[in-house]
Amino acid sequence: MKKHNFSAGPCILPQSVLQQAAAAVKNFNDLNLSLLEISHRSKDFVAVMDTARSLALTHLGLQNKGYQALFLQGGASMQFLMTAYNLLEKKAAYLNTGTWSDKAIKEAKLLGEVVEVASSKSDNFNYIPKNYSIPGDADYFHCTSNNTIFGTQLQQFPETDIPMVCDMSSDIFSRQLDFSKFDLIYAGAQKNMGPAGATLVVVKEEILGKVSRAIPSMLNYKVQIGKESMFNTPSVFAVYVSMLTLQWLEDAGGISAIEKVNNQKAALLYAEIDRNSLFEGYVTKKEDRSKMNATFNLKDEQLKATFDESLKQAGISGINGHRSVGGYRASMYNALPLESVAVLVDVMQTVEKGA
Amino acid sequence: MKKHNFSAGPCILPQSVLQQAAAAVKNFNDLNLSLLEISHRSKDFVAVMDTARSLALTHLGLQNKGYQALFLQGGASMQFLMTAYNLLEKKAAYLNTGTWSDKAIKEAKLLGEVVEVASSKSDNFNYIPKNYSIPGDADYFHCTSNNTIFGTQLQQFPETDIPMVCDMSSDIFSRQLDFSKFDLIYAGAQKNMGPAGATLVVVKEEILGKVSRAIPSMLNYKVQIGKESMFNTPSVFAVYVSMLTLQWLEDAGGISAIEKVNNQKAALLYAEIDRNSLFEGYVTKKEDRSKMNATFNLKDEQLKATFDESLKQAGISGINGHRSVGGYRASMYNALPLESVAVLVDVMQTVEKGA
Repeated sequence: MKKHNFSAGPCILPQSVLQQAAAAVKNFNDLNLSLLEISHRSKDFVAVMDTARSLALTHLGLQNKGYQALFLQGGASMQFLMTAYNLLEKKAAYLNTGTWSDKAIKEAKLLGEVVEVASSKSDNFNYIPKNYSIPGDADYFHCTSNNTIFGTQLQQFPETDIPMVCDMSSDIFSRQLDFSKFDLIYAGAQKNMGPAGATLVVVKEEILGKVSRAIPSMLNYKVQIGKESMFNTPSVFAVYVSMLTLQWLEDAGGISAIEKVNNQKAALLYAEIDRNSLFEGYVTKKEDRSKMNATFNLKDEQLKATFDESLKQAGISGINGHRSVGGYRASMYNALPLESVAVLVDVMQTVEKGA
Repeated sequence: MKKHNFSAGPCILPQSVLQQAAAAVKNFNDLNLSLLEISHRSKDFVAVMDTARSLALTHLGLQNKGYQALFLQGGASMQFLMTAYNLLEKKAAYLNTGTWSDKAIKEAKLLGEVVEVASSKSDNFNYIPKNYSIPGDADYFHCTSNNTIFGTQLQQFPETDIPMVCDMSSDIFSRQLDFSKFDLIYAGAQKNMGPAGATLVVVKEEILGKVSRAIPSMLNYKVQIGKESMFNTPSVFAVYVSMLTLQWLEDAGGISAIEKVNNQKAALLYAEIDRNSLFEGYVTKKEDRSKMNATFNLKDEQLKATFDESLKQAGISGINGHRSVGGYRASMYNALPLESVAVLVDVMQTVEKGA
């Protein structure tokens, strides 16, 4: 049976990418060797890394604007540490909008003072704080653009003169933004970009080299840039599949084209959540709703077994909410077709009619 | 044409593993989903992680002996930093046998005093120093078991009462050792264990928690152990392929069985290097020769074009020496069949006859 994969991450990837990835594991570039068994210094893999880095910048509109793209390891969690290691001299400003911001703050505190400019933690992060002020003497401002667990998303970014750092793990390449407003963007690959195991970092070079501490080689963006993202053996397969996914996005018309589909998917599902008498959204302020992850609950928990069975019958997978929120979470990343959302909406309507 | 893959890493993996890995990228465990698009918290992937961790300990004979196995990211280079972060309070002792030891020393120096107990650096690491003494008041002793670039390997490990840390990236699972002599073993996967993107750490729990510094979460072995190697999203595909490779090793009879084949391969090639009038080995002391990476040079560089062409015609790939040594390097990891070494020896003999 065809699956409709709403997993929050690792998540659905384009079918064509999966087919190409599987083929490369058997025989890469007609070398009669697997992608997994060639040197990362071979010209075939160096071309993959170069293409992936270049495509990332091109999609974001940041080619030739002083930015470098890196494919590192360790996920966003390693970036919580790396950003602070490279940028935090005395004080940094963080917006706390969810579990991941909270963890980023924890790591940054090991290296300097952290000012939490605003937080929705006391409301279990069910909205995005606004109208906060950012101290002009902070070394940087850090925010999380989309909160996978709670289903909120920043629709506006603040104006500030200090460097802006953003964890875009769960919505990068899903919508148009003026990415040049950001000085450092990072993202674990396993949502819109590829499989787990690679982490994209896009950094404006001019913000680096300003802290006084000695930075360990592996945590040092300048070292990684100097080695063209190959200071040591990169996560070869994950970088390759990221390249394929970025090429797929290019073929699909880029961010502007995929954003239209993403808007359609989100509009369809949220309309049903609001219309359907059985469900309610988790996020209290509709303007803060994420177009990537829609979180919602059954008003009557007694219907859970029926709804879950109907989801299963329809081939819908990966839709359980995170344990800290409960209920359901439909993740609608770039590779999820509109058709899958329609199937979900259909199940919601059928269960309502039968209730 | 069939390739004989002597690449130093990423390197040859068992054909059966590559076939299974490619299949899982299309459809994993008959879920009708790719391995790449399921949650790392799903029971199917948790079973992969648990099996991989368990197999690693079993192969090393370290089950139920106070050790934990972790599959982390960042390669051995990240372990250069992590070992020091977790273990280095005041002073550590390092044996310098090659490029990787040298890099490990550099990172450790950021966190404390490093005593280099011995070094073969002034001879471009063409032998393994012996008869050094290890300070008993150091926090730990660190060594590199096999030096990929130079083709040397520790055949004896020192006796010491302080914790012993070993970078076994390029020879783990290739030979029997009393692994319980080591308190921390780490290895990038991309030699005998799997593809690039995963790093095995095997650590005796009792040595942890003894430094006074605050350790960032991602760099903290105790945190990673507490989360059963899933503090954050692991490198799913690389862990899976590592599991498959460890299962392949089990089916092949484990380390003791593969060691016999590795000994045959090394004996065959080194005998030819010593016998053949055209070649000479790089390592000056034969007892230090690596059974994983044989480094050798043509005595007459004018024969290079002829030899290279003959290698190419025979389907031999990945055999160029590292730039810091030159010449040739035949890497003979677990998955390389004896037959491939025989093909190489045949080429060496044919070129000698024609010279």
